[in-house]
Parts: sequence; C-alpha cells; structure tokens
Amino acid sequence: MASTASTGNPFSVSLSSRKASFSKPSSPAEVSLRVQSSNASSLRTSFVSNSSIELTRGANSALKSSTVRSRTGIMASSAQVVDQPSSKTGPVAPTVVDVDLGNRSYPIYIGSGLLDQPELLQRHVHGKRVLVVTNTKVAPLYLDKVVEALTRDNPNVSVESVILPDGEKYKDMDTLMKVFDKAIESRLDRRCTFVALGGGVIGDMCGYAAASFLRGVNFIQIPTTVMAQVDSSVGGKTGINHPLGKNLIGAFYQPQCVLIDTDTLNTLPDRELASGLAEVIKYGLIRDADFFEWQERNIQALMARDPAAMAYAIKRSCENKAEVVSLDEKEGGLRATLNLGHTFGHAIETGLGYGNWLHGEAVAAGMVMAVDMSYRLGWIDDALVKRTTNILKQAKLPVAPPESVTIETFRSVMAVDKKVADGLLRLILLKGPLGNCVFTGEYDRKALDETLHAFCKS
Amino acid sequence: MASTASTGNPFSVSLSSRKASFSKPSSPAEVSLRVQSSNASSLRTSFVSNSSIELTRGANSALKSSTVRSRTGIMASSAQVVDQPSSKTGPVAPTVVDVDLGNRSYPIYIGSGLLDQPELLQRHVHGKRVLVVTNTKVAPLYLDKVVEALTRDNPNVSVESVILPDGEKYKDMDTLMKVFDKAIESRLDRRCTFVALGGGVIGDMCGYAAASFLRGVNFIQIPTTVMAQVDSSVGGKTGINHPLGKNLIGAFYQPQCVLIDTDTLNTLPDRELASGLAEVIKYGLIRDADFFEWQERNIQALMARDPAAMAYAIKRSCENKAEVVSLDEKEGGLRATLNLGHTFGHAIETGLGYGNWLHGEAVAAGMVMAVDMSYRLGWIDDALVKRTTNILKQAKLPVAPPESVTIETFRSVMAVDKKVADGLLRLILLKGPLGNCVFTGEYDRKALDETLHAFCKS
Repeated sequence: MASTASTGNPFSVSLSSRKASFSKPSSPAEVSLRVQSSNASSLRTSFVSNSSIELTRGANSALKSSTVRSRTGIMASSAQVVDQPSSKTGPVAPTVVDVDLGNRSYPIYIGSGLLDQPELLQRHVHGKRVLVVTNTKVAPLYLDKVVEALTRDNPNVSVESVILPDGEKYKDMDTLMKVFDKAIESRLDRRCTFVALGGGVIGDMCGYAAASFLRGVNFIQIPTTVMAQVDSSVGGKTGINHPLGKNLIGAFYQPQCVLIDTDTLNTLPDRELASGLAEVIKYGLIRDADFFEWQERNIQALMARDPAAMAYAIKRSCENKAEVVSLDEKEGGLRATLNLGHTFGHAIETGLGYGNWLHGEAVAAGMVMAVDMSYRLGWIDDALVKRTTNILKQAKLPVAPPESVTIETFRSVMAVDKKVADGLLRLILLKGPLGNCVFTGEYDRKALDETLHAFCKS
Repeated sequence: MASTASTGNPFSVSLSSRKASFSKPSSPAEVSLRVQSSNASSLRTSFVSNSSIELTRGANSALKSSTVRSRTGIMASSAQVVDQPSSKTGPVAPTVVDVDLGNRSYPIYIGSGLLDQPELLQRHVHGKRVLVVTNTKVAPLYLDKVVEALTRDNPNVSVESVILPDGEKYKDMDTLMKVFDKAIESRLDRRCTFVALGGGVIGDMCGYAAASFLRGVNFIQIPTTVMAQVDSSVGGKTGINHPLGKNLIGAFYQPQCVLIDTDTLNTLPDRELASGLAEVIKYGLIRDADFFEWQERNIQALMARDPAAMAYAIKRSCENKAEVVSLDEKEGGLRATLNLGHTFGHAIETGLGYGNWLHGEAVAAGMVMAVDMSYRLGWIDDALVKRTTNILKQAKLPVAPPESVTIETFRSVMAVDKKVADGLLRLILLKGPLGNCVFTGEYDRKALDETLHAFCKS
C-alpha cells in the first residue's frame, strides 16, 4: 500500500457484542441463546488532509466466531457451519449483533422464525399504538404475521397499517405524506411506534417519517430483502429521493431494534436476492478480506439460498456495518467507505429513472467502475479487478452501466453527491491489498475521465 | 400550593453564561464586552406519576443581573437600566445567553446593530456556501444587510437565497420543497450553512430544511420578530404544519447560533410586536414571578418599544427558555410547560385557518382559557386570573377565542395535540402562587368542559 502522511488520529474499535439470553417456554420453537463475539479485528485509520481517509486491516484478521447454544445442547461455530452448510431445518436460534451508539444503541436480531417469537418485537414497542408501514408486495405476505407478533397476548396494543405503492420511484415526498396522513388521522401520539416492514425503500421512508412525526417517535425495522437486511436497515440512515438525486432529504435516526427473520427471504425474487449480494460483496472489498474470500468459495451456495450460508453472510455484513456505524455514526469519514460504487451507482439510478435498475445492480456496476479507476490510479493490482468482476458475474449482477447513461449524466449527478465537500467530489477507491480502501478527493482527475470513457459509449 | 407526592427527582439548573469578549477596532461602534450572569434562581421539580410535572420556584428568586462594560468605561446593571430606561442611542453591546446542550451548545447574541458586526455571523459559518431562507416581507428590508454581513472581507463565501411567501399558511410541505429545490439546484453540499432570516415560520421551516437536507447541515437563526426572538428561534424545535394540526412534522435540531439584532424590530408591525409579548408574559406566568411583576410595571414601555425595556424582555425570555431547554431538550416533561395556552391556542389557529390570527394572539386567548381552567380546579386564586387578563389587555392581545371556533373544534384539534400520551391529553396549568405551573393529565375533565363552555358560544 502506498505510504501516506498519518496525522495519528486512529479510531479505536468499540463494537460490543451483547450477551443475550432468551427463553420462551410456551412456544414449540423453544430456544435459549447465548452469543459471544470475539472482535479480534485490528483497524488502523489515518487521515490524509481533510478530504482523505485511509483504511487498513490486518490481512489475517480473524473471522468473528459466534457460539450459539440451543436448548438441545448442539454447539456450533458459525464459521464452520457455513463452509459445511448444515442441512437441519426449523427455527434457528437468533444471533444478536449490537450497534453500539451509547444511549441510542440497539440490537439486530438475526435468525429463522423470529416473527414467530412475539416477545422479540414486543419488548421494543413503547406505548399502546403501532403503525406498520409496508408496501403492496410485502403486505399480502407478512403483514398479518407482523400484526399477530405485535398483538399476541398483548391486548393493550392496537396496530394501524399504511400500505404504500412498491418501488424506488415512490420514495418521494408525496408518498411520505401518506404516512403522516395515516398517523395523524389515526391520532397517534409521541408514544407510538412505527414499524418498517419491507425492503430498503420502506425502511428509509418509514424511518424518516418516524424521525419527523411529532419531531420523532420510536421505530423498528423488519427488513424483508437481502439488501435491507445487510445494509439499509442498519445504521439509521433514513430519507427520500429528490428528482435531482437519491436520498438528498432525510435524517440520521436510529431504530429501537432490527429484526431480521431470514424466512422472509423465501419469497424474494432472484433478482432482488442478487441485488442484496452486491452490498455483501462490498463489505469484503472495502474492509474484510477474509469475508470476501469466504464469498468466493460460497457464492454458489448463496445464489442457491442455502440457509446457513445466507445467515452467515447477513450476520457478517451486519457486524461490519455495525462496527463502522459505531465508529462514525454521522459519516464524518469512515462511514463513507460503505458507499463503494454508490456514487457511480446513484448516477446510473438517477440517469435511468428510479426503479429501472435495482439499487444493488447499479452499485455492482458502480463498484466495477470504482475498481477500474483504482487500478488506473495504480492503487490496486490487476488480479483484484478480475476477482471483483468474477464474483459479481457469478452473482448475476451487471459489471458495466447501461449504454443509455452518458458521461454527461455521470458528471451532473455526481456533482450533487452528498460526498461533495466545498465543490470537491470525494470517492471511495480501493488501495492496497484486498480489504483496503480510501475515501478521498485527492486523485488524478484523468483517471476518473478515463474510467467514464471506458464504460460509456457517449 | 397544593402538596403533591414528590418522587425526589429534582432537576439541577445547568444554564451557563458565557464570558464573551469582542473587539471590533475598525468600527465607529467600537465596544468590548464582558457578560457575567449570576444564576441565583432556585428550582424544584417533582414528578407526580408519569403524566404530571410540578414546577415551583422560590418566590424571591433574584433577577439575573448582567454587568456590561463598554470600552468607554461605563458600567450598568441591566435591571437598573430597564426600570429607568436609558435614553442613549447607537449600538448597544451584545449580551450573550448560552444554551447549554453539551456538544450542541450555542450562543444567543442579543443587541442593537449586531448585523453590522460581520464577525459574529462569520465565525459560525462553516464551509464556503450559504443559503439564506427568508420571505417576501423581510427580504426587501434585511436580505442585503445579511448578505453583506456574511461576505464582507470574506471572499471565499458565496451566498444564495430563497424567498418564500409570507405567512403561517405557507408553513407546509410544498413550500419546504422550494428550499430543497434551491439547495439542490445550487449544488450545496454538507459543509454549507442555512441561515433563517425572518419570524417564527421562517425559522421553523429553515431549521427543518437544515435538519433534513443531506441528513443535516449547519444553520443559523436571525429572528426578526419579537415572537421569534423570545421563543421560536431558541431551543431547536423546527417543523411544518399539517392540514390537521400545527408543527406535526419536524425535528429537534439546534442552530450554530442565534443572532438577535434588536434594530430589526423597528420595522415590525404593532400587531406582530404584541403577538410576541404573549410569549414574554408566558415566561412570567409559568416560572418567573419577578419577571411578570417587572412586565406589569413596564408594559407601557414595551408597547412603546422602549429599546432598553425591549432588550431586557428579550434577554430575560431567552434566559428562561435556555434554562428550560438545557434541562429538557426533547420535551420529556419540563419543556412542555413552555406551551402554556398553546394547546387551546393551536385549536384556535387550526379552527380559524392558519394565519388569520397571529400565533401569539391565539396563545394569549389560550392562556386566559388555561388560567380560567386552573382557577376552576381551585389551583390558583382569583387575583391571578385578573392580573393575567389585565396585562394581556394592556398588550392589546385577545383574551377570548373568536366566536367562530366551536367546542367541537377545540375537542377535535386538542385530540391530536403532541402532548396527548396514550390517549390522555396533558395540559399546562397554573398551580400555586404566581410563577408556578404543572404539566399534567390528572385534572377533573369537568373543569375543561366548563372552560370550553364558558368561552365558546357553540
């Protein structure tokens, strides 16, 4: 890796893993759980002027291991489970990943059958009124189940719901107002809880509505897509799109908990599944070489929806995201690295019109462009470019933008990116061995031009 | 005062007063300033169940005194200045009141000619881009002056402005979108600063826009009405109205500073001035008996816009508000007491249609209703009812709601008030001697009914 001036401003890792203990004696899916995570990762961050952050991880940082004990006494390391996928079926004991943000910390529950464990949700509902925000696709599949989980043996709680049209193109102010209308017509008060049931669009809109309704009410994320489970539901970024750019209006607002029932993936279309894997692959590229290598070995299992492989990919992604968010909630620098490929990707989404490509598809093409640019800058070697393209192809994701998106579109959309600071566009680029990246405005503009010309016909 | 069960949960006063030191050698209005505030107030707060907060102040709590030293060596106590208004003209040394919120603390600058001291504003602008949000009434009067203050000897900063239509009825989502449109078209980035130049509507909208644009950018309040200077610009409540109720959509979001140039009041219509005095009177009623008595002695000076009296009323109001906000930023309880008369008042504003009565006019009538209800409950004596009505009449404020607002309107609007918790409407009511109030849902419903019937024809 190229040597850079360090100002000696290291982050210290503060991710904590909660020791959780559940018991649910009356349920057939009776489980008790203890999770211990060892965080052996080493992380060094140095700042290069105000506009550049460099991130290095030890190449041999250990995979985090979780010891999960079911009431039947079976012990398993999740790392073992995944390389040799288990074939057991039925409810899997939930894993808990904590997002450590002081008095705004919250747990991410991950597992099969969690929507059949009402106490998980109910412990995070304050007050007597709940508004479930969902969409026309998810409501017929899971709304009844969620209402049941919120109200079973809980007669004091009443649940309203608002069902929005499905798709990124409805992530706008008009649709957001429907949430406020419903909340106000239902006379919800400050002690109510909003529940986001759906993918990233629903999570972002419901979260922003919760942040803004009566200047802030509780909310819970129940993500039902890989994209939302591994990325958008964790970390408190909420918001809506503006015709001129994605997520330009929103808030940092943390949920009470994130409940990931991996069973909801059973109804997810293949294309949506692949879209979510783009973000999983991103974590490997920017900060977790071991995880990337695990993905290279397990990409076929993931595409085949092997439950154990999928559960591990979700857990490891959430751990990566939780760690970054704990260190840099408001995106002072480090958190921006989670946006590898997103600046190019947003230009693709905006240029095509929201909803024509899925978010992860645009990010996949964007990551290939960022990796190409990193190579042109001499910051990574050729092998990493090939490995990136290979794994994305195996995940059936695009590795180039659509022809209709022009250089001019890229330039104009990238100019209003949130990572522009005082007129300078900062990008996330890979630098050094696999698992290392920088967030910087200090790069040769020629490399960006060359990448745009290489990938765009006009 | 009626004795109530105390749970021994006292707040401690943590308002701090900043020692400020300015020098501006090149100006004819050359001043240096030292402010010291002694906070001799005693404050006892006890909780009565979850839905009730009782607030008592020692009846003899000392007026805060500020020692202001000008470069010419004149010493004056602001309390003296006010009871014997000084006739000196020209710029008055700014007073600084701090809002103590940890790493989100900020100063309120109060004084004459502050917009002619560019360094006050410029020290709080980060980055190179500023967006001034103002309206059609204020822009012709002060926009050029503010742009000059932001840019004088400061060539790196460029200023955009967006001029909204004037009035409470434009405090809505459509108008808010114009701020986002302008910010995005101007390609502002996260390091920009929004400046609210105007009254309460502008401050609330600009603040919410700043909270939401790119998930949060810096902002500065330059309030130009008494209402905004003594109340809405301080404390970080931002938001917009919904057709079904006021301020139902918004955020708690603190500014970098509040700059109150009392010269801007020279252009304020009489009706707007009186509207602001309603909030000044409120501080006396709920928590500051000495201030209320000072107002009784000085109400004619305030109505005549005596500069020293006005400056003192603004400073003492800001101190009261800063103290409350420092103790309870997110309105867990104590802060709700600042809404004396507002629940009734919001019903009047909503019932009449936004903008027919000014906010302070509705609050004045609402305070009379709250005081009437407090008397019916046996919580205050008759004399306090009369004193309240008297001072509001002298301020040429209404002391009853308009005939067109019915009991049914009051009931339906109050049902969606932000202070409803799990279906129970909590109100701010006076209890005990002047300067004491409670925030409670525990009151005889009959008293509320009687008050509504006493004030409404139908």
